[in-house]
Amino acid sequence: MDIIRPRTLSGFMELLPEKQAKMERMMEILRKTYALYGFAPLDTPIIEDAQILLAKGGGETEKQIYRFAKGDSDLALRFDLTVPLAKYVALHYNELAFPFRRYQIGKVYRGERAQRGRFREFYQSDIDIVGDGKLDILNEAEIPSIIYNIFKAFGLSRFQIRVNNRKILNGFYGMLNLSEKSGEIMRTVDKLDKIGADKVRTILMEDCGLSQEESDEILKFIAISGSNTQVLNALEDYRGCNEVFDTGLEELKAVTENLAAFGVPEENFAVDLTIARGLDYYTGTVYETTLLDHPEIGSVCSGGRYDNLAGYYIDRPLPGVGISIGLTRLFYVLDEQGLLNPEVNSAPADALVIPMTTERTAAIALAQSLRNSGIRVQVYGEQKKFKQKMSYADKLGVPYAVLLGEDEIAAGKCSVKDLRSGVQVTVTAEEAAELILEDLKETASCNLILEK
Amino acid sequence: MDIIRPRTLSGFMELLPEKQAKMERMMEILRKTYALYGFAPLDTPIIEDAQILLAKGGGETEKQIYRFAKGDSDLALRFDLTVPLAKYVALHYNELAFPFRRYQIGKVYRGERAQRGRFREFYQSDIDIVGDGKLDILNEAEIPSIIYNIFKAFGLSRFQIRVNNRKILNGFYGMLNLSEKSGEIMRTVDKLDKIGADKVRTILMEDCGLSQEESDEILKFIAISGSNTQVLNALEDYRGCNEVFDTGLEELKAVTENLAAFGVPEENFAVDLTIARGLDYYTGTVYETTLLDHPEIGSVCSGGRYDNLAGYYIDRPLPGVGISIGLTRLFYVLDEQGLLNPEVNSAPADALVIPMTTERTAAIALAQSLRNSGIRVQVYGEQKKFKQKMSYADKLGVPYAVLLGEDEIAAGKCSVKDLRSGVQVTVTAEEAAELILEDLKETASCNLILEK
Repeated sequence: MDIIRPRTLSGFMELLPEKQAKMERMMEILRKTYALYGFAPLDTPIIEDAQILLAKGGGETEKQIYRFAKGDSDLALRFDLTVPLAKYVALHYNELAFPFRRYQIGKVYRGERAQRGRFREFYQSDIDIVGDGKLDILNEAEIPSIIYNIFKAFGLSRFQIRVNNRKILNGFYGMLNLSEKSGEIMRTVDKLDKIGADKVRTILMEDCGLSQEESDEILKFIAISGSNTQVLNALEDYRGCNEVFDTGLEELKAVTENLAAFGVPEENFAVDLTIARGLDYYTGTVYETTLLDHPEIGSVCSGGRYDNLAGYYIDRPLPGVGISIGLTRLFYVLDEQGLLNPEVNSAPADALVIPMTTERTAAIALAQSLRNSGIRVQVYGEQKKFKQKMSYADKLGVPYAVLLGEDEIAAGKCSVKDLRSGVQVTVTAEEAAELILEDLKETASCNLILEK
Repeated sequence: MDIIRPRTLSGFMELLPEKQAKMERMMEILRKTYALYGFAPLDTPIIEDAQILLAKGGGETEKQIYRFAKGDSDLALRFDLTVPLAKYVALHYNELAFPFRRYQIGKVYRGERAQRGRFREFYQSDIDIVGDGKLDILNEAEIPSIIYNIFKAFGLSRFQIRVNNRKILNGFYGMLNLSEKSGEIMRTVDKLDKIGADKVRTILMEDCGLSQEESDEILKFIAISGSNTQVLNALEDYRGCNEVFDTGLEELKAVTENLAAFGVPEENFAVDLTIARGLDYYTGTVYETTLLDHPEIGSVCSGGRYDNLAGYYIDRPLPGVGISIGLTRLFYVLDEQGLLNPEVNSAPADALVIPMTTERTAAIALAQSLRNSGIRVQVYGEQKKFKQKMSYADKLGVPYAVLLGEDEIAAGKCSVKDLRSGVQVTVTAEEAAELILEDLKETASCNLILEK
């Protein structure tokens, strides 16, 4: 038979089992946290009618999309989870209860130029709260609490949720009569971290055509910093000049003042007037999340409030707020930086039962009794030398080998070997289960992601 | 703005939240059971190089495949999880420990003619144990135990795992010197249930060209039935005439004799000589699983032993054993037949906290404390009338509403209303958590699938 050399397409992540176990754990944490906040899991098709998926049309997205014909159908693979959500909510509008809260962790597709760390198939992990006509600010206020609990559960503490409100920015530019240039200005200001204040001023004056005074006003405004209270107090000085600004300030205060009730420590949260988020789509609170010791990764969880989710599909305003994690990229970067904790139990089993006799009934029964206690068990059934059996256990990374020879069977016991310490004890099946479970409880509490 | 009528492509399942919750629970049971048997989760790309995916080529599959070009690449969507597994094992051969046990629950694509209950995008839920050169029979013996625990966890008891061995069939046809016709014969015999013994005899004689005597021998053979011991005893009468047959009989005995140790009750298991499985691919034990009260559904979990998983990609025999559940179709059929238990808690939250005051800090703090106990909570933040708030709770199907008015806040308590019974009690936050958790424990034990 001719052999075809196997390969996986470039830009497509395919993990080895040990890495996959860590990815699964990340997903498990996300699902669990979203569920605690009452989000319903959703699953929409990966293929959609291309006309529907591209209703918004144009732009970079359309060039990157996977689009193809099958029979008479013009099909495309989803390139995000927001457009399918908009379609879903519009299509099932009458059957949903609003505010509609859903989470979706799913693969999306963008035919980007192949490049290290760029993926063509990647997971997005999204939550959205979609209102019918209106949506209370409380929903925007809840988002930082969700972000906080996710990253906390990942094992992190040195991260910051940075929040701003587009109405504050739009209102401020309105005060300066620069509303028409606000998009251009925000894109420039967004580069502050990278190029510094002087260069931003130069661009504002030379490229955007602002006066020195206007540029200085803007730089002064976005330089407002300090504790949340200090920033909010400084913003009070601008109150009363622009209605949109005032609404934005009220919203920002509503988001910040409930942080303590939501259990978010002050140190993990910052009002940051430089956050704008690129998309025109956002209209209120916007969020970014950065790992304090790894600013080079950029925002690991972003989103915001929007006023019109599904205008292309339904003649009814559906405002909402959502955040998204680019899971595949996040996982890739954490791995590259060595931040995935090697101590995490990522073996496919907690124990490998090794029968040392030809008759294996006792080993099978022992394995079943361990499984009944919730321990993940493999029975090694291959006829190999003892050394090869142990080498398999090593390769898998299982913490425990459970040996069952004639002596053990005669005594109604088994030998449990901790493969990390080398310590071996001979105990009953019940004692073995207890011993292993106790240890698993300990390793389960170890952080998935390291900070260093 | 022009409105595009939203729709989901036909043949693509898109569930409403309540149904999706049940699907998620099925997947959760599968993941948990696979994990207990030491299978590693795997995730491979949905898009593969078409040349690699179609290495085997030809047949019905190729016509149904979603295949398209992107740039210079000839791409295709996977149509099962077995070919991607073969590619994965061949590609990562040097990095895997064998026997390699993996599970994968993933979407696959087949452009079948649209038809009620036929899906173009559907989940398969697969496990495989892949050996390097050899694979011990113990692995085949373990499979019924896994199937048993899955369907038991679904809430079922009236199901039967039917097992046969291809070597027994091949050996038997060898005894009759009918090896060359064995494929044809098996396909005919496979129709026994549908068309009856007389018609099978007619086809065997007229279409397959067998003599009356040969046909009678075959019908006598596949008519062997009774308890497992009775069937195995009857098979002993054929021993010694054909080596392949004898090996098959030994294997079948090894699979059946460990059932008790594996915790599989006799009543959920049957040796059934009529099971052949269509695919030429299988070489040893084959499995089918039927719901006893719903034979019309057909096999809900099937698979078998094969000798050469990845011959197209690697010059090395990789024998294995695997089973597959057509999850989307199974879910669809169970739903159609009304077998999904409506009692299952499929609301996105366990409790809806309803603030009855304009100041909502206390409600937020209460919600967080319930979440800290593991209760899934939504806070209803919209400014609506009380009746509308309760109607939202009803629509969601949450079991509990937790009301927080001025009186409750002053007393440091909250009012917990069981929305099924209408009973309302005023208690502390801790008592509320206890009360709700106690109830959740009870509803969590309710069966996902009904038998009727």
